[in-house]
Amino acid sequence: MDVRAVSQLSRPAPRPTDVGGLFQLLRDGLPRTRADLALLTGQARSTVAARVDLLLASGLVAPAGEASSTGGRPPATFAFSPSTRILLAVDLGATHARLAVTDLASTVLAEHHEALAIADGPDAVLDRVAAIGTKLVEQAGRTMGELAAVGVGLPGPVEHSTGRPTNPPIMPGWDDADVPGMLRHLLGAPVLVDNDVNIMALGEHWAEFPDVDHLLFVKVATGIGAGVISDGQIRRGAQGAAGDLGHIAVPGGKALLCRCGNTGCLEALASGRAVAVALSAEGIPATSSADVVALVRAGNVAASHAVREAGRTIGGVLAACVSMLNPSVIVIGGNLAEAGESLLAGIREVVYRRSLPLATQHLRIVASRTTGRAGILGASAMAADHVLSPAAIEALIP
Amino acid sequence: MDVRAVSQLSRPAPRPTDVGGLFQLLRDGLPRTRADLALLTGQARSTVAARVDLLLASGLVAPAGEASSTGGRPPATFAFSPSTRILLAVDLGATHARLAVTDLASTVLAEHHEALAIADGPDAVLDRVAAIGTKLVEQAGRTMGELAAVGVGLPGPVEHSTGRPTNPPIMPGWDDADVPGMLRHLLGAPVLVDNDVNIMALGEHWAEFPDVDHLLFVKVATGIGAGVISDGQIRRGAQGAAGDLGHIAVPGGKALLCRCGNTGCLEALASGRAVAVALSAEGIPATSSADVVALVRAGNVAASHAVREAGRTIGGVLAACVSMLNPSVIVIGGNLAEAGESLLAGIREVVYRRSLPLATQHLRIVASRTTGRAGILGASAMAADHVLSPAAIEALIP
Repeated sequence: MDVRAVSQLSRPAPRPTDVGGLFQLLRDGLPRTRADLALLTGQARSTVAARVDLLLASGLVAPAGEASSTGGRPPATFAFSPSTRILLAVDLGATHARLAVTDLASTVLAEHHEALAIADGPDAVLDRVAAIGTKLVEQAGRTMGELAAVGVGLPGPVEHSTGRPTNPPIMPGWDDADVPGMLRHLLGAPVLVDNDVNIMALGEHWAEFPDVDHLLFVKVATGIGAGVISDGQIRRGAQGAAGDLGHIAVPGGKALLCRCGNTGCLEALASGRAVAVALSAEGIPATSSADVVALVRAGNVAASHAVREAGRTIGGVLAACVSMLNPSVIVIGGNLAEAGESLLAGIREVVYRRSLPLATQHLRIVASRTTGRAGILGASAMAADHVLSPAAIEALIP
Repeated sequence: MDVRAVSQLSRPAPRPTDVGGLFQLLRDGLPRTRADLALLTGQARSTVAARVDLLLASGLVAPAGEASSTGGRPPATFAFSPSTRILLAVDLGATHARLAVTDLASTVLAEHHEALAIADGPDAVLDRVAAIGTKLVEQAGRTMGELAAVGVGLPGPVEHSTGRPTNPPIMPGWDDADVPGMLRHLLGAPVLVDNDVNIMALGEHWAEFPDVDHLLFVKVATGIGAGVISDGQIRRGAQGAAGDLGHIAVPGGKALLCRCGNTGCLEALASGRAVAVALSAEGIPATSSADVVALVRAGNVAASHAVREAGRTIGGVLAACVSMLNPSVIVIGGNLAEAGESLLAGIREVVYRRSLPLATQHLRIVASRTTGRAGILGASAMAADHVLSPAAIEALIP
């Protein structure tokens, strides 16, 4: 056994040696020749050629013209063909629904947004989702037969292995509902479900930070939650409850009662709702996160001050997360982030003061760049990962 | 494309289709027939038979007798043969060195423990490590030529990709030292390095909780640190600084100055050293974590009380970690854990009070079960993972 050629290294990824593995190399959309693929995989030209033929037959890979040549006949190139099938992405909030039909590369083909109360319960909400979804597929000029999978984000804890909500506090009637089964019955395609913040983390990561391995996405809106990406993958924890920032006790925080029954939780002190409550106690009319954002945008100094203070409070908890997880990017999303720089400034101030230099020297804290689309992009990316996984691709090949 | 057979599922692992992948199925040590392996992999009997022959030739797999048969000639079984090569496991603390020679399944063949000051610097310490290691190999009745890899744990931050310490606070002279290069020069085998708490987390996970996917190992000694295992793997974060619990601000904690320059850090309030300082301020003679443990064991009530209070303080920070990571097991190790139930009781009290029910309903908080061997077991497991990775196995096969 001679493995002495290396002295220290990250665990090398297994070389893809099958059709599903070969396909993963093409998912970035770049055209490649058979020779490129043979070089990337270390496999024989003949093996690669046979596998490319299988992928061409499946329609997932298509000819992409000729490569430039240094002489002789230029070799043919092949690329991922993401338009073969479509995905339905569904982002459900407490009071809204956003849906999109995308291709397999998560490019949006048709999109819809409307007010929809999650409290109407699973039957009413999922019927409406199926109706909008069917209409969007038609709008995109596609058919339901082309639908490969559905990705759904829900505003509460979800057991990822079954896709069922688990005691979701703001989703009456949804506890243990068979969301995948119900939607599959309505739409005829496999359904993947996760909580909304994980979906947003996936979407932001997929769209804006694909090369970042350690990312924390924090949603600051009516509530506060986070999605954890570590070593490039979302980490859900043992019960799918990872990232539940909202009920962490704030260092040095006031003992305000939280809806969870504890006192001093982050959400009770620094969510959009908490800031609105604090402002209205000062005689400034505000009842929601959106009201707070409107006040800040209108130049209300007390509101800006309150949002910055909320940022500092959030920063205290995020400093602990930085010590625990050592991310290189923290993305701040949710509607309170639309209040502009005040929130970020407060967060940055405390995180950079409270964390160790090793963990902050390359840390960026930025506002979400997906302008409200993180949820649908993430739901689409989750569905695509399911449809295009090595095992799913293998299953296509006779 | 028909992937509709499933509606919601975890990402399926790619099926092992190569020799390295096939070997992973045998790493648990159980004997299997060619037919078992064909069933597990979905590969043709002839393919499996050819790959088993390659593994037999490498010596990593050996015949393991005959399976029971329902009639006819009983089929031959094969199993991982971990004694083919040896590993050296090195656990260096601030003032001690523990070394072991193990086989490829991390079974200890020879072991040594001695006082060794990390502050003596890399040249002196690594020379001593090489000398002890060489002697242990001989004691185990093996030769240096059989040494496949070396795993090392260091008491400070380590950049995992290079194996170099990064500004380690208690390791003067070690900053950016090429530990893998120096040790490889002395021992002639590849060297993997990580910080001591990650190594302990790996060891505890490997030896006691192999089926637990989400585990937090917390070391409470002179300092406080943690190793994070999520989805079955150690998570090191962007700079290898993940799990750095010691400098998280304690919710509601006193503003004691910490050696890091901040105030109110967990380590300044609840480490073994902090408890010793607090006790000596009360007139009880104690200067170290070990003194505190001795006092508790001798029935000193003030010491028991102080340790339980330290547990509560640690519990406040661990409650935040539970919300962030949703582990199913938290293991408490380090020498202050040897003070018995006081520390655990304080930790449990606060974690179960401060965390959400979803995250604590199946959470166990337990004392380390590896009795001081977590470090060497983890160093050995890290080295074994390197030597036996699918890519390393592939590289053996012509």
